[in-house]
Amino acid sequence: MNSEEIKKVGIVGAGNLAWHLSIGIQNAGYEIEGVYNRSEDKAERLATKLNTRVVTNFKRFKNCDLVLLVVSDDAIRELAGEINQLKAIVAHTSGNTSLEILFPHQKIGVLYPVQSFSKHLEVDLREVPFLVEGNNDIVENSLFNLASKLSQEVYKITSYQRRRLHVAAVFANNFTNHMLKQAHDLCEENDIPFSVLTPLIDETVSKIKTITPVQAQTGPAVRHDHRTIEIHKKLLEGSYLKLYEMITDDIKQAYK
Amino acid sequence: MNSEEIKKVGIVGAGNLAWHLSIGIQNAGYEIEGVYNRSEDKAERLATKLNTRVVTNFKRFKNCDLVLLVVSDDAIRELAGEINQLKAIVAHTSGNTSLEILFPHQKIGVLYPVQSFSKHLEVDLREVPFLVEGNNDIVENSLFNLASKLSQEVYKITSYQRRRLHVAAVFANNFTNHMLKQAHDLCEENDIPFSVLTPLIDETVSKIKTITPVQAQTGPAVRHDHRTIEIHKKLLEGSYLKLYEMITDDIKQAYK
Repeated sequence: MNSEEIKKVGIVGAGNLAWHLSIGIQNAGYEIEGVYNRSEDKAERLATKLNTRVVTNFKRFKNCDLVLLVVSDDAIRELAGEINQLKAIVAHTSGNTSLEILFPHQKIGVLYPVQSFSKHLEVDLREVPFLVEGNNDIVENSLFNLASKLSQEVYKITSYQRRRLHVAAVFANNFTNHMLKQAHDLCEENDIPFSVLTPLIDETVSKIKTITPVQAQTGPAVRHDHRTIEIHKKLLEGSYLKLYEMITDDIKQAYK
Repeated sequence: MNSEEIKKVGIVGAGNLAWHLSIGIQNAGYEIEGVYNRSEDKAERLATKLNTRVVTNFKRFKNCDLVLLVVSDDAIRELAGEINQLKAIVAHTSGNTSLEILFPHQKIGVLYPVQSFSKHLEVDLREVPFLVEGNNDIVENSLFNLASKLSQEVYKITSYQRRRLHVAAVFANNFTNHMLKQAHDLCEENDIPFSVLTPLIDETVSKIKTITPVQAQTGPAVRHDHRTIEIHKKLLEGSYLKLYEMITDDIKQAYK
């Protein structure tokens, strides 16, 4: 596999993901050349943790093999524009941003970890799938090799695929959580401990590891059980009712 | 706690839940007097498993302390009507059916396990929350005691609460699963392995055991990140788009 070995890595950003990633990269044996961040305070804290320097001028990254932009989607283009032409691969970590935004850098790539990172929550990077992309095979392979030292599960995918996966993640994470919010609020409003639903929720998620969601679906909508659906609708109002009707109709359509 | 001891139990029904429950009840030390089921073949199989008899006439349950109707919602009323007046408590196991449907029996109750049972999937009843109700304290306490021998988590709740919990379970289980179906299908259509999303889904569910779904929510909708929402909408069509717009709007409303 045609690739260039990455040794020195420059980190841009000092948020949750920057912490988790840079620590993981350092633990995998790479040298962190320095940390750049708009707010120097935050850069200082991460640099201290990594026992490296704070960088205030991107020229300090001139010996890096990889400069990783671990910043919000909005900041990627601007920061990439500020970096002078380097020998390094310039890569971002966003699920929803194209590769091309990093042009006119010559070696550009994406290193996207599919997980939601919280500040105080330990995450085992080995279990986090990484999706990599590069503007040529050498870049892509180099990033693939680095990701493979962080995680057991690494895939090469295109910007087109990554964007769609990012939407899929919204359904799987944010929308699922919103359904759990409805369940939580319904319990709370009726003095029922939400924990009563925990085993059922665990079961729901555990099933789709061995069978598809279509095979796993149960309940009144998939059975086209209109009597139960009508009883449920009479119990609901407002936003609950709107969601219930819409999703029930969608399930009925999907399993005709 | 005022109660009557339950010793002998008659089982009506021979479906998934009847299997899981009756085996659990027997293992907890109760005597299963017999199994009644419309289809005698199925009754035979469960009775054999329990080493008890098939019952074709409800009079055989005259010495029971509890007759448990473990049948579909539609069949509860009819079967309850066929049972002659007994000394036993007559109870059903449905989340969505009122207690009163069991009148004119004198001692009536509900024993509702909050879990979705599949045929070939082992379920540890100790981890399944049971919700009990009775038409008087003695019945309710008797069922509570029995449920407490099956499970660590038993609550007394009213029919009013149980109905609402049943709707909450539809959100937590069926609707959550439908969100996972969208994610699954989006992956499949774009040649991305669905397993890439597994750690994220696990994290989503694991979070709500320590923080509320409101505290756990992330993503473009809760951030009111309209740029990302617009990008996502352009990638979607049909049923995906309808769900995306509706749920995104609902999240935006909920976190104004």
